[in-house]
Amino acid sequence: MPQRNVKLDYAFCLDKILGEAGFGDTWFKEMAGQVADLHKQLQERHQAGELGFMDLAEQDLGEIKDLAGRIALMADNLVVLGIGGSALGATAVDMALKGVLRHGKPAEPGAMRLFVADNSDPRLFGELLDQLDLTRTVFNVVSKSGSTAETMSQFLVVRDILELKLGREEALKRLVFTTDPEKGNLRAIASDEPVAILNVPPNVGGRFSVLSPVGLLPLACAGHDVQVLLDGAAAMAADCGSGRLMKNPAYLLAALAMGFAGRGRNVLVMMPYASDLMGLAQWFAQLWAESLGKAVSLDGHQVNSGQTPVAAVGATDQHSQLQLYMEGPADKLIMFLTLGNYGRDLEIPGLYPEIEALSYLGGRTMAELIQAEARATAAALASQSRPSLGLRLPEIDEFVLGQVIYLLELATVMAGALLNINPLDQPGVELSKKLTYGLMGRKGFEDQAAHLDALETGGDYVI
Amino acid sequence: MPQRNVKLDYAFCLDKILGEAGFGDTWFKEMAGQVADLHKQLQERHQAGELGFMDLAEQDLGEIKDLAGRIALMADNLVVLGIGGSALGATAVDMALKGVLRHGKPAEPGAMRLFVADNSDPRLFGELLDQLDLTRTVFNVVSKSGSTAETMSQFLVVRDILELKLGREEALKRLVFTTDPEKGNLRAIASDEPVAILNVPPNVGGRFSVLSPVGLLPLACAGHDVQVLLDGAAAMAADCGSGRLMKNPAYLLAALAMGFAGRGRNVLVMMPYASDLMGLAQWFAQLWAESLGKAVSLDGHQVNSGQTPVAAVGATDQHSQLQLYMEGPADKLIMFLTLGNYGRDLEIPGLYPEIEALSYLGGRTMAELIQAEARATAAALASQSRPSLGLRLPEIDEFVLGQVIYLLELATVMAGALLNINPLDQPGVELSKKLTYGLMGRKGFEDQAAHLDALETGGDYVI
Repeated sequence: MPQRNVKLDYAFCLDKILGEAGFGDTWFKEMAGQVADLHKQLQERHQAGELGFMDLAEQDLGEIKDLAGRIALMADNLVVLGIGGSALGATAVDMALKGVLRHGKPAEPGAMRLFVADNSDPRLFGELLDQLDLTRTVFNVVSKSGSTAETMSQFLVVRDILELKLGREEALKRLVFTTDPEKGNLRAIASDEPVAILNVPPNVGGRFSVLSPVGLLPLACAGHDVQVLLDGAAAMAADCGSGRLMKNPAYLLAALAMGFAGRGRNVLVMMPYASDLMGLAQWFAQLWAESLGKAVSLDGHQVNSGQTPVAAVGATDQHSQLQLYMEGPADKLIMFLTLGNYGRDLEIPGLYPEIEALSYLGGRTMAELIQAEARATAAALASQSRPSLGLRLPEIDEFVLGQVIYLLELATVMAGALLNINPLDQPGVELSKKLTYGLMGRKGFEDQAAHLDALETGGDYVI
Repeated sequence: MPQRNVKLDYAFCLDKILGEAGFGDTWFKEMAGQVADLHKQLQERHQAGELGFMDLAEQDLGEIKDLAGRIALMADNLVVLGIGGSALGATAVDMALKGVLRHGKPAEPGAMRLFVADNSDPRLFGELLDQLDLTRTVFNVVSKSGSTAETMSQFLVVRDILELKLGREEALKRLVFTTDPEKGNLRAIASDEPVAILNVPPNVGGRFSVLSPVGLLPLACAGHDVQVLLDGAAAMAADCGSGRLMKNPAYLLAALAMGFAGRGRNVLVMMPYASDLMGLAQWFAQLWAESLGKAVSLDGHQVNSGQTPVAAVGATDQHSQLQLYMEGPADKLIMFLTLGNYGRDLEIPGLYPEIEALSYLGGRTMAELIQAEARATAAALASQSRPSLGLRLPEIDEFVLGQVIYLLELATVMAGALLNINPLDQPGVELSKKLTYGLMGRKGFEDQAAHLDALETGGDYVI
């Protein structure tokens, strides 16, 4: 088993650097006790089968690889029809591995293009369908329940177009469902129609599903080595098996983030210094927001927990957000993701030696520049007693991404335990869904439609 | 002059909807007085020449159009080398008008592809240069000072490659500078070398520059009607000339946002229900963050002002962020951007009538679905006393975008006035720049390098 090489640097969270704003020995000691106790709880929940994401590294990939192989024979494009946790993981990994500019293009000659259609936006979806040769396209419908309105509306549109164009038999060959092994509408449809189908383990929720068939089929189709993703997760899991705070990077990350949240830092910025990791930051934003943003009753009062994730990119957002991070409200913890190796580099030539503001760049490289900026920005923030964490990635590859994914998933679950909330549910999204059903005329939701009508103010408050 | 048709809906900010969390007559009255006073201040600052963005709608476009025409004759690609305010505006408008999937592709047969290289990331930039036919590419270097490290390092790399490949004369033909009319390194270089050059008005800062040559040259090259963008800005300006709060959508937006910020809502989410407006939300995130995130001294104490902008997309982020917005801390104001017309639509066919969770979708359209989701989500938030604003766009075109840009710029300046800070500077970004110079070995920054060395902890706090 290869060793984990993704590391967490927490120096800029310490009182010896930040003064009062940082944490010292007393805090770490008290937190270590809490985390040790919660670790036992998580172990019990894992043994009770609740934390399925922890077992994904052990899964057999035979079915996924076989199916990806069969898809590759008939298609140039794989389109994921999914939203939220059914979409963000595949986008994050594909964008990181191929780069922003080649996301949606072949990874290598012969590999398929991967598209993730994650919105019920008719302009976007119509444009995508226009661009594709549908005879050479497979659509992977991803929904555990098979009732997600955005995804199912896309599915219905595609199902109809394919059948009109190619006939029923050929249409069904171009569909793959990823869904619950027993329940839901996609399962019901597949019992009548011969559609290829993959199971999402019932104990793996959408936002923890990137290393399940939800993420792995699209990533395998796109030409990535999904076994190495799992190896990375396993390497991180091996190092995160301990209940000792200072030996477990996932727990330390969770403890520091929640510690700062408890001191009024209700925003967590994830800021990779690599444009290609923007998708990863957006994947994390779902994981952190939906898992930890919870209303709970405590002694008869409602407590609203959570920390708002913000996805930023360095060095770009130094020219957009840094002013706020430096001088705005002291309400943030920044998590920098840095790269030891960018995979390629460009030397900056020493032109215009007479211009002092340019000449210092000559002979250095662009990787040196962006790495210097990451280090300088963390130090600048520390000088204002503003904390940051450094997640250090040696490079971008499947093994590193597998580690990062597992680390952040486990950190999220520990953060939930520290907040004493359930990080696996999302009850707050139901009301909006029901009101949408009301507006769309679904039977049984007439009250919701009436509620919306009652809210209408007829343009009285529109200027 | 055409009339403004972008509207602001503030019903879900009112106490009659939200209860105590909302604003009522007393607040509006008191705010109207403040805004009327501050309007006079802004008028004075405008007359003193400080608020240059307010005059951009009047500019003559002859030079920009001529240059765009000449570039079109020699190039298929325009690459902007710029970062922050030199990049975000062109990306926002091009992505909105062409759509995410065609951003970086021709707007129409014969129009140029526009790329915005907004990071000093060697993998991203190297990949971009690999993809382009450099003989058919023009590089637009955008920097007021000509000392922005990220942009100038890109410029040096490109200048060298072009000259090696094509010789000096042909290389210089493929460069356009957009910079200060008198000062800075690009101006100095252009005085020795025959490079086409456009001026940024000195009283227009980067984040207010999208309607100056900074944004307009790239957008004209990409085939967009930049005069109509200015017409939109003029239409909004005409409606935002009043100092009366309830007659001025920019001032009302500012007052409500700062009013909620004053009640602990330190996060402002901009959430367009259109994937193609993600770039606009990121443009706004810079405008709001960098303008309002300021440390000021008040009676001997430091006050840290600002409101953290978050860019989200509906309906997508209903499956990522909505749980947090509904149940997490009551620290947010959401600004929804909705579209009356998506420009195209897809009918959802009535397949699987026996499945109740799908059949209600049959016969409706995807535009109806996403519009229903926007309305339902705002109402769901309101039911939890969580405020939102609705910015209603009839459709996406140059005229609408021009209106939105002007509205948000003026709102930002009024918000700065309400906070009693200067929205036009960004002193907080200097320290990170100086520390970067130290690491890059620039002369005169040896103390900064030493400061960083002193912060090194040799891996003691890395796990």
